[in-house]
Amino acid sequence: MELEKFIRDVPDFPQKGIIFKDITTLLKEKEAFQHVIHLMEEKYKGKHVHKIVGIESRGFIFGGVLAYLLGCGFVPARKPGKLPAETIQEDYALEYGTNTLELHVDAIAEGENVVIVDDLLATGGTAQAVAKLVERLKGNILGIEFLVELDFLNGREKLDGYTISSYLHY
Amino acid sequence: MELEKFIRDVPDFPQKGIIFKDITTLLKEKEAFQHVIHLMEEKYKGKHVHKIVGIESRGFIFGGVLAYLLGCGFVPARKPGKLPAETIQEDYALEYGTNTLELHVDAIAEGENVVIVDDLLATGGTAQAVAKLVERLKGNILGIEFLVELDFLNGREKLDGYTISSYLHY
Repeated sequence: MELEKFIRDVPDFPQKGIIFKDITTLLKEKEAFQHVIHLMEEKYKGKHVHKIVGIESRGFIFGGVLAYLLGCGFVPARKPGKLPAETIQEDYALEYGTNTLELHVDAIAEGENVVIVDDLLATGGTAQAVAKLVERLKGNILGIEFLVELDFLNGREKLDGYTISSYLHY
Repeated sequence: MELEKFIRDVPDFPQKGIIFKDITTLLKEKEAFQHVIHLMEEKYKGKHVHKIVGIESRGFIFGGVLAYLLGCGFVPARKPGKLPAETIQEDYALEYGTNTLELHVDAIAEGENVVIVDDLLATGGTAQAVAKLVERLKGNILGIEFLVELDFLNGREKLDGYTISSYLHY
């Protein structure tokens, strides 16, 4: 299936000069949505995944389905102040300033097999922060799944050593 | 299955005096997560659902799986500034001030059958705003699904006329 044709280019979003790759036009087409999910599922079927970590908030859409299909638990990685119980945090750099992501301290047990899921691999900072969080909880990262990868931002370099999958490249 | 035992009470979150019902302890247990999903799926199997609208951001987790299982498209209802293309907006009242939710104008076609999904029914303001958005796009709302309902806030009254389901009551 040609996934490219389900992605909408939105010029000048979120700021002038950027062409935003809109995945909502893929999500609303059942065949395209199912196709992406099956590509991700195929990679981890029979691999004894214990937890899918979905990154807020588009990672929740793919991550939830993947957890269901693989028969494992779902864990949200969230922005500060959203997870109610005790958390650990990691900061990551943005073009200007930093952001933070959190996991509940009891979200992953030592030695559990974990797959991290997000919609987009850009600079890799977000996924790197989540990978650090998972490893602080002593989870074993089997791989990181993205729908879209912006190759020119070299996010893969930051995630060196992890198994990275993405299904659409720009 | 006794879903109650998978929900964690977090006192004084997000503010002093509130006991927060944390669903992340349910999401991370595969049997509980799957059970909830099957309860929601059961309601709409064979009902020709065209779109699941998930409300940002915990509604994305359940909504994504439901769209997959029912074989329909997924549509995110998001906070302002997150959806990149042309949107419609609805405001809803909070205790102090208002919030806004958006849908892409082309997210739902006229006459499509829609199910709205969120994790929590509190005052009903959020779901009511999303229902209005769906109806402005001439979607046909089959029902609104919640995992948890806070009965004492009477959110159902605000959603009078819609088919409401929830699986845990406080």
